[in-house]
Amino acid sequence: MKPIIIVAAIALAAAAPAKKLLTPSDIVAAAPPGAWRTISPDDLLVMDLKNGGRVVIQLAPEFAPVHVANIKALARGSYWAGASIYRVQDNYVAQWGLNESDKPWPAGVTPKPPAEYTRPLKGLRIKPLGFPDPYAPGAGFVDGWPVAYSSRGGWADLTHCYGYVGVGRDLSPDTGTGGELYATIGHAPRHLDRNIAVVGRVIDGIDQLSSLPRGTEALGFYKDKAQNVPIADIRLASAMAPADRPSYEYMDTMSPTFAAYLRVRANRKDDFYIRPAGGVDLCNVQVPVRRKG
Amino acid sequence: MKPIIIVAAIALAAAAPAKKLLTPSDIVAAAPPGAWRTISPDDLLVMDLKNGGRVVIQLAPEFAPVHVANIKALARGSYWAGASIYRVQDNYVAQWGLNESDKPWPAGVTPKPPAEYTRPLKGLRIKPLGFPDPYAPGAGFVDGWPVAYSSRGGWADLTHCYGYVGVGRDLSPDTGTGGELYATIGHAPRHLDRNIAVVGRVIDGIDQLSSLPRGTEALGFYKDKAQNVPIADIRLASAMAPADRPSYEYMDTMSPTFAAYLRVRANRKDDFYIRPAGGVDLCNVQVPVRRKG
Repeated sequence: MKPIIIVAAIALAAAAPAKKLLTPSDIVAAAPPGAWRTISPDDLLVMDLKNGGRVVIQLAPEFAPVHVANIKALARGSYWAGASIYRVQDNYVAQWGLNESDKPWPAGVTPKPPAEYTRPLKGLRIKPLGFPDPYAPGAGFVDGWPVAYSSRGGWADLTHCYGYVGVGRDLSPDTGTGGELYATIGHAPRHLDRNIAVVGRVIDGIDQLSSLPRGTEALGFYKDKAQNVPIADIRLASAMAPADRPSYEYMDTMSPTFAAYLRVRANRKDDFYIRPAGGVDLCNVQVPVRRKG
Repeated sequence: MKPIIIVAAIALAAAAPAKKLLTPSDIVAAAPPGAWRTISPDDLLVMDLKNGGRVVIQLAPEFAPVHVANIKALARGSYWAGASIYRVQDNYVAQWGLNESDKPWPAGVTPKPPAEYTRPLKGLRIKPLGFPDPYAPGAGFVDGWPVAYSSRGGWADLTHCYGYVGVGRDLSPDTGTGGELYATIGHAPRHLDRNIAVVGRVIDGIDQLSSLPRGTEALGFYKDKAQNVPIADIRLASAMAPADRPSYEYMDTMSPTFAAYLRVRANRKDDFYIRPAGGVDLCNVQVPVRRKG
């Protein structure tokens, strides 16, 4: 067996009883309870597929409040009844909703939300990445989220990392209501940052999207609608019976544990590594999120 | 329909007859014949799966000559008869070969190749990326390949971008002969750069790997060997009958066309985009490669 990377702890040989060099997973496993923050069930969108798969999305109301309020209203109003995953483009996105539907919006939906593609930097506490970012003057973490920002411009944006969720739109910026969502399933398409509303991230079940057959039409749309992957239900965890609700927590990005995790992400020195990188890009840091209980 | 990105040319409305803003695809489509370089059939590894899928890999002998010579000897010696894809880890790699086999190496294989994780910078003509790279002092392109480099250190390495192929190894650096290969299927795991021999890239059929079910064992190994995806044949294009050989070409990264492509990759101004990024990371540039004839 030739695993190409060891993510779990490795027992050191007896001949080398010296200091154990930690992996990122070691640091996450040893994190104290105080390093974790519970995600509100009102910010968890639970998508169940008819094939039995489940995809759980953490919403980010602090970055796109009107779009996220729309998504919650769509879930509460059962807008997605009959929806499906209808587009899977390799190294790019999987997209779902009621494509080309004229279904009316449920109560509480703002049909033309403002272009929440950035938010004011003011008031945000940022843990800096500490390495250059080719897409923005600054990069770091705010309350568990990866962000790019400009101190001079006064803006911050939630970035398109792997598994992040955005609102599909047409060419005009006021055309994305929230009914059509996509998740990124390849190398982070950061050129979309500041051009689309990013509303959250898949925290469980991304493989239910990333392993789907790729669509063969332009942009990865499925050619035959029979290829569409039917969605059984999309609802907020807060609308589920308490006993059925999944619960998750994310690592506090201002915690000393996260600082240690970030250092090791940029400098892998565990047994497999010969030359630590001495740097890391924003989307390879992957803020730890785990199921509770 | 709400496509989230337009990759093809968009016809401008009659009301806006001004200068057409090019997409990266427009530039590739209009590239003159002189901007392309044919890939030698001796550097094309053709992997046919028993399910009918085909994966074509361009080998990079200039970066890992002994490892690539091994791979060619393994193909010529039919080493991979009975091989399969046995590991698929989400946002990471798909890996194939004869896992845990004691099969003897065919003629011409160096069982313990040198650690070709970097190569001398001297003699390389580099087209610089022009934006900071968090993983190395420099980043750019050499003869169609993305590279990281250090002028001070005098080294360059082929980087782990999406679809790039490396040689699986155990903890010790002299354990990767070339029999077990992986391709990256998620956000570029650049922390592996300079720690593994990168031997090429998938130039056709990456979706045959990226859309496979993820393995549920540690590191994405398939739990049940019945889940392994059998490989029908792995051979060099040069060993195929001329009429059956696929042929490909890549864009010359020193050409003016590539320079224009790189500029637009960093500054999308076509109709969908509101705010061009003003930068791009190495792995989002994606050197154009296309089938010939």
